[in-house]
Amino acid sequence: MAASFISSYFAPCNIRTVTFIPNNPPAHSVFLVTKSFSVRSPHRSVDSFSSKTIKCCASARPEYIPNRIPDPLYVRIFDTTLRDGEQSPGATMTSKEKLDIARQLAKLGVDIIEAGFPAASKDDLEAVKTIAMEVGNDVDETGYVPVICGLARCNRADIDAAWEAVKHAKRPRIHTFIATSEIHMKHKLRKSREEVIQIARDMVSYARSLGCQDVEFSPEDAGRSEKEFLYQILEEVIKAGATTLNIPDTVGCLLEDEFAQLIADIKANTPGIENVIISTHCQNDLGQASGNTIAGARAGARQLEVTINGIGERAGNASLEEVVMAIKTRGKAIMGGLYTGINTKHIFMTSKMVTEYSGLPVQPHKAIVGANAFSHESGIHQDGMLKFKGTYEIMSPEDIGLYRSNDSGIVLGKLSGRHALRSRLLELGYELDSKEFDDLFWRFKTVAEKKKHISDGDIEALILDEIFQPQVVWSLGDLQVTCGTLGLSTATVKLIAADGVEHVACSVGTGPVDAAYKAVDQIVKIPVTLVEYSMNAVTEGIDAIASTRVVIRGEDAHTVKHALSGQITQRTFSGTGAGMDIVVSSVRAYVGALNKVLGFQSVRCTVSSEASA
Amino acid sequence: MAASFISSYFAPCNIRTVTFIPNNPPAHSVFLVTKSFSVRSPHRSVDSFSSKTIKCCASARPEYIPNRIPDPLYVRIFDTTLRDGEQSPGATMTSKEKLDIARQLAKLGVDIIEAGFPAASKDDLEAVKTIAMEVGNDVDETGYVPVICGLARCNRADIDAAWEAVKHAKRPRIHTFIATSEIHMKHKLRKSREEVIQIARDMVSYARSLGCQDVEFSPEDAGRSEKEFLYQILEEVIKAGATTLNIPDTVGCLLEDEFAQLIADIKANTPGIENVIISTHCQNDLGQASGNTIAGARAGARQLEVTINGIGERAGNASLEEVVMAIKTRGKAIMGGLYTGINTKHIFMTSKMVTEYSGLPVQPHKAIVGANAFSHESGIHQDGMLKFKGTYEIMSPEDIGLYRSNDSGIVLGKLSGRHALRSRLLELGYELDSKEFDDLFWRFKTVAEKKKHISDGDIEALILDEIFQPQVVWSLGDLQVTCGTLGLSTATVKLIAADGVEHVACSVGTGPVDAAYKAVDQIVKIPVTLVEYSMNAVTEGIDAIASTRVVIRGEDAHTVKHALSGQITQRTFSGTGAGMDIVVSSVRAYVGALNKVLGFQSVRCTVSSEASA
Repeated sequence: MAASFISSYFAPCNIRTVTFIPNNPPAHSVFLVTKSFSVRSPHRSVDSFSSKTIKCCASARPEYIPNRIPDPLYVRIFDTTLRDGEQSPGATMTSKEKLDIARQLAKLGVDIIEAGFPAASKDDLEAVKTIAMEVGNDVDETGYVPVICGLARCNRADIDAAWEAVKHAKRPRIHTFIATSEIHMKHKLRKSREEVIQIARDMVSYARSLGCQDVEFSPEDAGRSEKEFLYQILEEVIKAGATTLNIPDTVGCLLEDEFAQLIADIKANTPGIENVIISTHCQNDLGQASGNTIAGARAGARQLEVTINGIGERAGNASLEEVVMAIKTRGKAIMGGLYTGINTKHIFMTSKMVTEYSGLPVQPHKAIVGANAFSHESGIHQDGMLKFKGTYEIMSPEDIGLYRSNDSGIVLGKLSGRHALRSRLLELGYELDSKEFDDLFWRFKTVAEKKKHISDGDIEALILDEIFQPQVVWSLGDLQVTCGTLGLSTATVKLIAADGVEHVACSVGTGPVDAAYKAVDQIVKIPVTLVEYSMNAVTEGIDAIASTRVVIRGEDAHTVKHALSGQITQRTFSGTGAGMDIVVSSVRAYVGALNKVLGFQSVRCTVSSEASA
Repeated sequence: MAASFISSYFAPCNIRTVTFIPNNPPAHSVFLVTKSFSVRSPHRSVDSFSSKTIKCCASARPEYIPNRIPDPLYVRIFDTTLRDGEQSPGATMTSKEKLDIARQLAKLGVDIIEAGFPAASKDDLEAVKTIAMEVGNDVDETGYVPVICGLARCNRADIDAAWEAVKHAKRPRIHTFIATSEIHMKHKLRKSREEVIQIARDMVSYARSLGCQDVEFSPEDAGRSEKEFLYQILEEVIKAGATTLNIPDTVGCLLEDEFAQLIADIKANTPGIENVIISTHCQNDLGQASGNTIAGARAGARQLEVTINGIGERAGNASLEEVVMAIKTRGKAIMGGLYTGINTKHIFMTSKMVTEYSGLPVQPHKAIVGANAFSHESGIHQDGMLKFKGTYEIMSPEDIGLYRSNDSGIVLGKLSGRHALRSRLLELGYELDSKEFDDLFWRFKTVAEKKKHISDGDIEALILDEIFQPQVVWSLGDLQVTCGTLGLSTATVKLIAADGVEHVACSVGTGPVDAAYKAVDQIVKIPVTLVEYSMNAVTEGIDAIASTRVVIRGEDAHTVKHALSGQITQRTFSGTGAGMDIVVSSVRAYVGALNKVLGFQSVRCTVSSEASA
């Protein structure tokens, strides 16, 4: 709440003091108790706001009522990483990965999780359903549980699928949409304005009639829609029972003043608007998504649709971390006290998880979560004035849960035991179960045999390799490669099947990876195309661990329907692998991606057989 | 000019028609004649605006006068890729690379090139001087030549260095700055307001006294400075002869309304402001840089400081491509007709060049230049409505100079000859000299022996590998590697020195790259640390060409002074290599980076001996 903020944040000499204060401190302790995955708030970070702050911020996140927020300054964060983000090229995720991310989003404290587009495929429906059942019922002691939302076009089949998926959640929401711009109505829908209004009204009513009390409606391409028509259709869907009205700039063509004006105009001219929540959804085609979203909030929107890392189709969406940190650092000073319920200390870990699972990297100069975003922290000569960090720093890495090993001075090596590794993991925010820890420890010791100092980056690469992996069908036994400029690259691969049987194959290729992948193909025998291949060393030094990522496209029937365009596309699957040998890490990544394809097939078969039963 | 735009851009059904029209069409043909580097406007793109448009847009870029723009709607683009961008971690560029980029920026049509911070080191001074002499005197037939600007802190030594570097240009500019926020004045400068005003006034006068008619002044950290103080210091520097006043949000903490208000307030309250140009410089720490820059232009700024790809320290700067394309697509509709002189068809190639030379990749969902930014272009099922591209597209890939091989249907293979390759290169925008072409053709044939279809991506990877390279000191002869999980990785490397002598070494390592790099180290014997290592397959398919990038830090005296903080840091150098064998491409990249270190040393020695002469 507004009253909970310490005033005078922006007094020039005092700028850093208050950036440590969470928007909504009670959430900080609250989120620690949500059970899930393997990431939690770091131990070291519990003391960065004063007792005075805790006292004056004692009010909790406002009660959840679909069409009304008891505190007018509270802004809901609607995360669509799993829906809009997942439709990015190559970002297909398995059900397990989606569930992991949903759990992490709950830990982050997002108000609404748009978990998918259930009509896209049976897999998508099942994934949303699982999230609704598990994450959507995991109520914490303050009463917080995220709303689980499913997207649906304005037709009964889509709405039925969405409801089937989300109804298991404690707070289910259906989000339905239809295009309202002339260009879309004419060329895509081929319908008149009257027809579009009729469909929207009927489908919102239909969603309500199923028992869903929380219905969001979006006039697609609102940014290019005629305003009077928008007021009219929005008025009608409010009457039909919509509780949130989302205003998408679908093609990302609006600049900030325009978007703010659009929100303000809708707020001023739509009859009944005072009984619903206005929401923003900004695409980033001109690089304006974050700014537009903030402008929307200032103009009266109280739900902001965002994705982690700003992923999404084309240039992506407004990024959660930018929008949330802008509100956190400037909400009091220039936004009249707006605040969110996000526990920002989980931002960094969430960003990493989404990077891993989506296969979409963030650039080094990405705001908030890029590798260089806080790079002024390090430096060879830190002269005196840099010790006063506020000269160039408006937030601290700790605010987003980023801790550096050079801060702690702890370095692990080959003599470090289980206890030392576990302690470091806890400090980094990872709490693994004992099986996971055993697997990791074994990898850790293997690396420590070869590498003198094991950094946090090394440890995280191993975690990503060991823990953030799909169900294992095939695993890498051994690999032997000869390559170079002088002869034919040759690889011999031993893979171990789920039943423990070892399979060996060899192949030549144009390079070591080509040879090794062809050998793997001889064993696994799934027709796939390699779409992307990339590798990064995760730490400095020539003996760094390399992390490889591949994206493959299954050449059989892994298709999915696109929510907005209705296009059918083939799914792609990503895999990652880490190792000190880049050929080994490349093969691990490829096998991981193949496992994901196989895991996806087995899920689909299960659903199909259930459906036919 | 405003009158030159076709009206009604934003009529919903007509949205795409006008996005084809360059902001300033005459520049389009004009820039084709500037001699330089190897990139030019693609052949296929000359016809995308109608003769009617050409006629009504006949006026050229306004005459350059330092403190005044004859057309009030013209917005100057000030590119600081070579100064602010180059100070990003790992983005050190050689003088040749800086010159290449400066030439490309001139082709793009930027009004001002901030070519560096000459006081940082002798290398920096020399690089700026070379750019001033070459690019700064390459006047085209319309009279366009970019202003060449050098940064200087407010002291005589810095200003002397800047003038020494830029004075050779036809239009030289000195950009000097001093911090004006309380936090910076107290903790960094340790000076009173009066002292700061005195220094600023004296140093602007000093710059003018050297004969520089074009002096830019920045109150550093203006975003957190007290406004009355800003008006006061700006008034004083105007009196002292400043011609452009740049308003930096140095820590990236402002939101859009605030920044717009700051520009508007300065415009309204600073005596004499009507006789100078107001400029923006927005950092991106909260993801707001592009939006803030656009807001600044709308509030009256007529110079926008940007970088290609938005690179820069921490979260970088406003990106040229986002700002320019926002003005291009929406300048008429909602910005009162603002326009720039940028020839947007060179954006994509400039972005690629900067990515290569800076070593800073852009994320797939980066607006305008990311790999996915136009990805709705492709797709397996393009249903009918998608044929009307305007449904989801507000600009076309061709607008930024992005052409796809699947558009042309041309595929090269092992039977393709020199003519076919040269034709394809021209279509892609590359015009190589005959030596460069011969080198490329040889590589092309080698790859074509192994790979059935050579895509545009393959060709571009080879160009980057062959052409975008530092001066060759060492080159890779042969390489032989054995690795895998079963034994010790071993590499044998043959390098050829500049004198043609072959050197062979072998080493074991933790992986094939580690082994090969250690073998290279045995020959080259320069102490370096590997800072970053990354690799990407540039095309689909397991037999793709991989492009490797490494960043190394020389462990001897390659230091540079940071403009804002005064910190001394060690330089880092990047190298890239392409090949179908990832170990080979890794070694090529490493040798390239080592060549860069060696090239840098030889330049420095030359300068030193000149200076002592």
